[in-house]
Amino acid sequence: MVIKRIPIKQLAHDEVEDMEDEVAVEYPLTLYLNGDEWVTLLCSPAALEHLCYGFLKSEGLIKSRNDISQLTLDSEKGHCWITVKDLNPLVLQLHGKRTQTSGCAKGITFYHALDNATLVANHSTSTVSFDHLVALMARFNGASPVFKATGGVHSCAVCSANDMLLIQEDIGRHNALDKLIGEALMTGLDLGHKILLTSGRVSSEILLKAARSGIAIVVSRSAPTDMAVREAEKLGMTLVGFLRGRKCNVYSGFERITG
Amino acid sequence: MVIKRIPIKQLAHDEVEDMEDEVAVEYPLTLYLNGDEWVTLLCSPAALEHLCYGFLKSEGLIKSRNDISQLTLDSEKGHCWITVKDLNPLVLQLHGKRTQTSGCAKGITFYHALDNATLVANHSTSTVSFDHLVALMARFNGASPVFKATGGVHSCAVCSANDMLLIQEDIGRHNALDKLIGEALMTGLDLGHKILLTSGRVSSEILLKAARSGIAIVVSRSAPTDMAVREAEKLGMTLVGFLRGRKCNVYSGFERITG
Repeated sequence: MVIKRIPIKQLAHDEVEDMEDEVAVEYPLTLYLNGDEWVTLLCSPAALEHLCYGFLKSEGLIKSRNDISQLTLDSEKGHCWITVKDLNPLVLQLHGKRTQTSGCAKGITFYHALDNATLVANHSTSTVSFDHLVALMARFNGASPVFKATGGVHSCAVCSANDMLLIQEDIGRHNALDKLIGEALMTGLDLGHKILLTSGRVSSEILLKAARSGIAIVVSRSAPTDMAVREAEKLGMTLVGFLRGRKCNVYSGFERITG
Repeated sequence: MVIKRIPIKQLAHDEVEDMEDEVAVEYPLTLYLNGDEWVTLLCSPAALEHLCYGFLKSEGLIKSRNDISQLTLDSEKGHCWITVKDLNPLVLQLHGKRTQTSGCAKGITFYHALDNATLVANHSTSTVSFDHLVALMARFNGASPVFKATGGVHSCAVCSANDMLLIQEDIGRHNALDKLIGEALMTGLDLGHKILLTSGRVSSEILLKAARSGIAIVVSRSAPTDMAVREAEKLGMTLVGFLRGRKCNVYSGFERITG
């Protein structure tokens, strides 16, 4: 249940009306990693296995689905017990450092330590036409039922050059992307050369999550930060912002957008 | 410098134009607490001392400005060295647990452990008229220069029943609120009975940060989560969402809104 109906009072032009409103449910999911309590995610209670797989992939703790030998989800208690094979203690230690964070922000030390070793420039020669991007975004905007009901979630989608393949929603824009990445991992969909659409702002963290999955083109309805633009340039990725109607800003990698 | 001008290509109705765009700067600030590296915040590089004070207050590590005996900010390196008097190792340990987080999400264990002990219901009898809220929000919407330039930040303001007292912007909605809380702490402004305006969604974390500062009325342009609504009810706070034009939803504490 990702939406809850609650009684509210609506004020409009000095009239008060008792009515019901639909709000997004916020759900705490605690992950236990190889026996130890590890992290609690506040998320929308849907696609929780996808979230677990995607979060572990984004955090650099697994590379493939087979790196997890067991995953037991108790959705009633909000607990997920995960056993990762050959858990790298260094990665876990760096993770501990990295996740000393504040809300939407996240430590950068670990990024640089790990990403410099693992992230390489994206040499994808895939392209997408502007008309196709406009059509994809229009479809994406209409394909978010929880947002339509509540206005309280972000959505992300993975697209090929001519189709929308996966879409996920969550109260957190990081969670929405991790759910996508997890779903791709679980269903064997290769994200290389794919297009990511997101409703939310693109910070360096979102950009780097996409980069680690091999995504070549990141397209947002909203704004990027300067650091996301710099990372996109460095990694040879295409970054498009403010795609609204038939207008957008291309911040990096213009060669992948065809007329 | 919270805004950076960068060269972009703007696509509009099949025309391509080389132009400059203003984007929000994303800046890593690493806090060192009593000699140890503690946390890196990704933030807008303004009001950094306010952010440090507010973050420490929100995390429960300080209660008053005097609990910090030294704060040295090196804004070039992005380092801030803070010495807190009588640092409670239990709080720090719980903090470590709590901040095992994902992006916009944050662990809930610590909240319950600490908040149950410290948070009490808000018995403020202060009220605000609907007309005044509408006027405050209109002023708030026009008072965010970085948002106007970049579209890439959130803003928060503290208001009395008839004036806007403080306003802060940041790439993270948690940081924007922490900057406000820090500014109030540094300038001796009591947040009890005040109104918080925010551009962003109200999750349980935002609601609880406001609660810990004694704020009685939280008003957002956007949506709350169900957990935020439940916390507001439990704590006797007023929670208003979707205040746009002359319309809003009151989720909790309607008695503080006068006609």
